[in-house]
Amino acid sequence: MEQQSSEHPDATFDPRELREQLRSGDQEAVLAVLDRIETADQVLAFSRLPEEARRDLLLLLGPERAAELIQALPESLAAESIEELDAADAARILEMMPSNEQADVIGELDDADAGAIMGHLSDADAEDVRRLSAYPDDVAGGLMVTEYLAYDVDSRVSQVIEDLGDNADEYAHYDIQYAYVTDERGGLVGVLRMRDLLLASRQRPLRDIMIPSPVSVRDHDPLERLVRFFDENRFFGVPVLDESGALCGVVHRVAVETAVAEQGDRMYLSAQGIVGGEELRSMPLLLRARRRLSWLSVNIVLNMIAASVIAMHQDTLEAVIALAVFLPIISDMSGCSGNQAVAVSMRELTLGVVRPSEIGRTVLAEVSVGLINGLVLGALLGVVALVWMGNPYLGLVVGGALMLNTIIAVVIGGAVPLLLKRAKVDPAIAAGPILTTVTDMCGFFIVLTFASAMLTKLA
Amino acid sequence: MEQQSSEHPDATFDPRELREQLRSGDQEAVLAVLDRIETADQVLAFSRLPEEARRDLLLLLGPERAAELIQALPESLAAESIEELDAADAARILEMMPSNEQADVIGELDDADAGAIMGHLSDADAEDVRRLSAYPDDVAGGLMVTEYLAYDVDSRVSQVIEDLGDNADEYAHYDIQYAYVTDERGGLVGVLRMRDLLLASRQRPLRDIMIPSPVSVRDHDPLERLVRFFDENRFFGVPVLDESGALCGVVHRVAVETAVAEQGDRMYLSAQGIVGGEELRSMPLLLRARRRLSWLSVNIVLNMIAASVIAMHQDTLEAVIALAVFLPIISDMSGCSGNQAVAVSMRELTLGVVRPSEIGRTVLAEVSVGLINGLVLGALLGVVALVWMGNPYLGLVVGGALMLNTIIAVVIGGAVPLLLKRAKVDPAIAAGPILTTVTDMCGFFIVLTFASAMLTKLA
Repeated sequence: MEQQSSEHPDATFDPRELREQLRSGDQEAVLAVLDRIETADQVLAFSRLPEEARRDLLLLLGPERAAELIQALPESLAAESIEELDAADAARILEMMPSNEQADVIGELDDADAGAIMGHLSDADAEDVRRLSAYPDDVAGGLMVTEYLAYDVDSRVSQVIEDLGDNADEYAHYDIQYAYVTDERGGLVGVLRMRDLLLASRQRPLRDIMIPSPVSVRDHDPLERLVRFFDENRFFGVPVLDESGALCGVVHRVAVETAVAEQGDRMYLSAQGIVGGEELRSMPLLLRARRRLSWLSVNIVLNMIAASVIAMHQDTLEAVIALAVFLPIISDMSGCSGNQAVAVSMRELTLGVVRPSEIGRTVLAEVSVGLINGLVLGALLGVVALVWMGNPYLGLVVGGALMLNTIIAVVIGGAVPLLLKRAKVDPAIAAGPILTTVTDMCGFFIVLTFASAMLTKLA
Repeated sequence: MEQQSSEHPDATFDPRELREQLRSGDQEAVLAVLDRIETADQVLAFSRLPEEARRDLLLLLGPERAAELIQALPESLAAESIEELDAADAARILEMMPSNEQADVIGELDDADAGAIMGHLSDADAEDVRRLSAYPDDVAGGLMVTEYLAYDVDSRVSQVIEDLGDNADEYAHYDIQYAYVTDERGGLVGVLRMRDLLLASRQRPLRDIMIPSPVSVRDHDPLERLVRFFDENRFFGVPVLDESGALCGVVHRVAVETAVAEQGDRMYLSAQGIVGGEELRSMPLLLRARRRLSWLSVNIVLNMIAASVIAMHQDTLEAVIALAVFLPIISDMSGCSGNQAVAVSMRELTLGVVRPSEIGRTVLAEVSVGLINGLVLGALLGVVALVWMGNPYLGLVVGGALMLNTIIAVVIGGAVPLLLKRAKVDPAIAAGPILTTVTDMCGFFIVLTFASAMLTKLA
């Protein structure tokens, strides 16, 4: 019981404690604190340290423990902390990490920092980082590691055992379940269980004891395919072949899990207007403000375009000032309805129950929901307008406009993610602004045109 | 190469093909289609079938293959399809599924259907479903399966081997890596590797060959703890102990992965206004409309409350009709800024770099961003208003209002998720509507109050 509860987040741990001890320079006390608290609290405490204190702590921990901590951090915080170090110190820590995590961290740095650190990596590591960085994040090549064991099919058991002993230090960080067996051109021809290796007579060639025709994936296979693979196979890793069929890496199950979770998180953040990378409040203020502004400035321009529709109908508005109360309601409610349709399309795309080409099907399914919800919302708003402003024609105008615009909003909301997907634009980022701009323009236009037509009854 | 490409989604497969063949009654052709296409296309084609055709297909497949298909479907579609079957047929399919998936599907059904199907399950299965359903979805108890092997510590190797042979059919569906070894009170005292079992002399008791003191989790341990556990341990499953310390289930790695992905998806869907369960367009129209309306109707009421602020200042608006153009812009832009802050708080909570109690810290970090972004956006809108309407005071009023309201929006957006989390309300659902209502009210109030004060300069 004692041991169990110590792994739970310790709400009584004060993240400032670590900072105090770092400041006082008591290295042993710092290490004692980190030993005492669990990973989640280490991350919390580390994220609260000022930049110099983070650097001091990483140096104090030494490359191996520093690498463990870096790997537990959110990626953006990891990169930020690495940037604070001298390139040589940073490289020493990165060398303790698997190649895909090296590439992820270095990919987050600016070019100058990345170049300086690469210069301090071993040639082999630098080459791996360069190669892995060339792949998109969501294909096998972008998720694989280059730390794996591969031996020629004609090698003898004794040679392999000797190699394992000679390079024990280097291999200690590998995730070893299998070694891979390749032919003279690097093609994957078998896998070797460590157990079979130990039980085999030392003079036999690997081809006699390997499991032939192993499963593999291709370097450009997309994340969805890897998810299916690990769903259907109880492996911790799968070998990756490049275009020529040569073995070039291994994708681990945990890398695929992480990538899937990140995909969902990115969808949420994009929809909420956090674009250009994750934001943590520990980041520099100007970076945070600038990133958020990049999204807001697009939106304010789109908003002005939409509002110009109102400006064009100022005379109508002047005659029926009560309309001004209902314009923001129509704008906001159409946005709400449309965003629901966006979310359903995004999910259907993710789940694979709709194809990007099936616009017609999607529109049809949305029109029917739009009719019902538009009718209900329009009637509600119409009745409120009638009671509030005491004019049945006003109720008719705003209720009718909301009804019509709800239908437009769900149709656009449903269709836009599919169209963007076909156009290879990230729908999570672009669908929202496109939707709200178009529905605002339509909504303002409809309500003000209806009102112009009924002006004598309204004024 | 041939084999590789056949696993890729086959864009040429027409999901209607399956429906045609079902209609023609050619059972062999139906099974041939399913054998030919990959799982993703099976799900797509199945989701497009009308309800009766889904039922026919599940019956045609037989319980075992039907269970496989059901498990590949999105949960809501799985439940919908099970509901179409007679309770006895449904039970036969469910019995082929692991207990946690049984409980998940039955949890999605309405009470009458669930009861009828439970009546057809074996007593042991029904009892398991009842027990698992009692746990929240995001703790070990809600994620575990009850299909595992457990033997008494004094059992002999021969007894275990005999039991495995006698019950081979039942155990065939278990995910067996280890058997668990328990004491007379059900407490977990060891794990048994299948390999060690086979290599042991038949008369030895399990206590001699088991690995003692195995790791375990508690039934009420939260998802985050399980995520950490599987990050740090290369196991495919972990035994779960109940309050009394007795072994009560096993959580598999894949269940934890799935739950994490679902958590992110739910956050996105909630933020977009899809609440009360996932929506697929294959669901009944009225259900889809009703669920969306439940969210929209709350929002329209909140919108009306916010708009009442405008109604109270109609005289100001009448004097300066140009303000009506800017009200929707201020409302929408404040919503955008506030939603960004909501997203950052949600992520910081998920990543564990903020605690729900740290309101002050969050507000401080937001005020500074709000100052910068408010200044930029306010200046932009002010200049546009000046140029557009030719009145510098109008620019001052709308620009100043947007500046001030941006600060309010980011502070509220940053703080609300933390406050909701402390109040144990799901912030993903509630933060958005609370935010937009409050910021709309503040925004309308500020701009119209500023305008009233400057009325002589504006009119």
